[in-house]
Amino acid sequence: MITNEYILGIDLGGTNIKIGCFDSNLNLIGKISVPTRADVEPEFIVDRFFSASEELLKQNSLSLANVCAVGIGAPGTVNSAEGIVVVAPNLPLLKNAPLREMVSQRLGKPAIIENDANAACWAESVMGAGKGTDNMVLFTLGTGIGGGIISSGKLVYGSSGGAAELGHLIIYPDGRTCACGQKGCVEAYASANSTANRATEAIAGGTQSTLTKTLEKNGKITSKDVFEHATDGDALAKEIVEGTTKAFALVCAQLAHLIAPERIVFAGGMIAAGDLLLDQTRRFFKQYISASSGKRSIEICFARLGEDAGIIGVAALALVTRN
Amino acid sequence: MITNEYILGIDLGGTNIKIGCFDSNLNLIGKISVPTRADVEPEFIVDRFFSASEELLKQNSLSLANVCAVGIGAPGTVNSAEGIVVVAPNLPLLKNAPLREMVSQRLGKPAIIENDANAACWAESVMGAGKGTDNMVLFTLGTGIGGGIISSGKLVYGSSGGAAELGHLIIYPDGRTCACGQKGCVEAYASANSTANRATEAIAGGTQSTLTKTLEKNGKITSKDVFEHATDGDALAKEIVEGTTKAFALVCAQLAHLIAPERIVFAGGMIAAGDLLLDQTRRFFKQYISASSGKRSIEICFARLGEDAGIIGVAALALVTRN
Repeated sequence: MITNEYILGIDLGGTNIKIGCFDSNLNLIGKISVPTRADVEPEFIVDRFFSASEELLKQNSLSLANVCAVGIGAPGTVNSAEGIVVVAPNLPLLKNAPLREMVSQRLGKPAIIENDANAACWAESVMGAGKGTDNMVLFTLGTGIGGGIISSGKLVYGSSGGAAELGHLIIYPDGRTCACGQKGCVEAYASANSTANRATEAIAGGTQSTLTKTLEKNGKITSKDVFEHATDGDALAKEIVEGTTKAFALVCAQLAHLIAPERIVFAGGMIAAGDLLLDQTRRFFKQYISASSGKRSIEICFARLGEDAGIIGVAALALVTRN
Repeated sequence: MITNEYILGIDLGGTNIKIGCFDSNLNLIGKISVPTRADVEPEFIVDRFFSASEELLKQNSLSLANVCAVGIGAPGTVNSAEGIVVVAPNLPLLKNAPLREMVSQRLGKPAIIENDANAACWAESVMGAGKGTDNMVLFTLGTGIGGGIISSGKLVYGSSGGAAELGHLIIYPDGRTCACGQKGCVEAYASANSTANRATEAIAGGTQSTLTKTLEKNGKITSKDVFEHATDGDALAKEIVEGTTKAFALVCAQLAHLIAPERIVFAGGMIAAGDLLLDQTRRFFKQYISASSGKRSIEICFARLGEDAGIIGVAALALVTRN
């Protein structure tokens, strides 16, 4: 008798397709990564899912017969209830693709689909930094800022999956222009790109900084550079980091009042900045939020599952659907 | 055989206790209002509930034997799951009172308890301005600003019922000081009190306005005065109204990104200001939110149930619990 208790978790990114194979306790048995092609039809992407899944299963002495369910994580706006990728800016041909049904048919398994940040949020809540909470918020801090919200143990979707666009909360009305066209979004101040850009702009404006040499040497400044130079005491870098962590603190305050989570979890590349980012954000959060609100006790912490959060999350969601 | 299909909806306010008797289709059969005493123990308040309920039922040729469930709406922070009033600033003796259990025992009926703004939000979603939506937000615009959030058909509670504190969303970091101690809360700009205060402050600062005569005559300016003088063309009043409606638009933008509701509903005394308030808020909302977000189509409208929303909401919630 074949044990069909394994779950595939697929993370469709702009650069790579990552697939993990999990047992029914969500232990990762093995994973594989293949390049994404942005210029192809959804059918081709699903074919890649199929062939990569077969290869991964074979590497682990398994086959599709051992799989009971498939979870898919996709970027952009995903309508999980309908199983559709509404729009994915980096994968334009996926617009309105019924990816859940396509995968389910191609692999012959029940499937779920979820926005990638929601998937990471779910993973952290099930077995990561949000474990034990009923209400949590995850921020993905990278080139842009995204995230997910869990309220009373359930992901918050909103109309057509449009909720939890955390990067576009307006923190400074009529402030810096964001890539989305709005003014004053947190992403326009505190994403990795915006953090680096604010430093570059200040230097171009004549501000003295040890970052000037980095700019001359590398042709650009990264968010990582800014945090490193701030740690080393550079005044401009410290000011830029303060701007970034104040922005994080402000959105944490908004979420405290709206969602009242037990925990706010930061994930994504920027958390490599470590204690400086976390300590300052916590400090500014306590300044922005009133003592009488009872919300100063909200924990702000880093994610624990790293880059596998996406595949873990969709596998966990697929497992719930199966049960 | 006695038909026990009636539901009592109790709205415990700082000034009055209002009780409605509803049939199982949520038709209001009759209602009664008795003064609240803020200086008494919870047991006394529950006694008032009991005696007023008996009187109301008698007036409608009914008795407690005809009642199947009771809903209670209470101000402040309410933990609905636990049935406790966590804290109610205007009724300090209610702090941590297990009001649901007390009412259930005294009246001999199953009971539910809910925050009053959440109750109004639920009522509007069931049979008012939010009908037909799965995701909606209600703002109560009065002396202060509060509200409720419904996501995927369920009220958003957060940890210990602390979610949906809509008045304390920060719109201008380091801005006006709010009664809560925070700076820049929407309530510090756009509540009825703050709207009036901003006008009074401007006049005290020497700004010319037709409101000056109102201030001299009545000893104060109200939010209603400000909206009336704005309609009549007074420059200061128009500027103050612009500040208030911009503040509303900014919090609508935050909720659009976080919750992605189909509809945002304004309730409370301030909506008497009418089209001027609504039209300007809609206009500023479209300015603040990017076209690419797909969120400009969110409807912003007024509540329809008026002052009975509170008793309707808790009756509707009690009905669901009974079923």
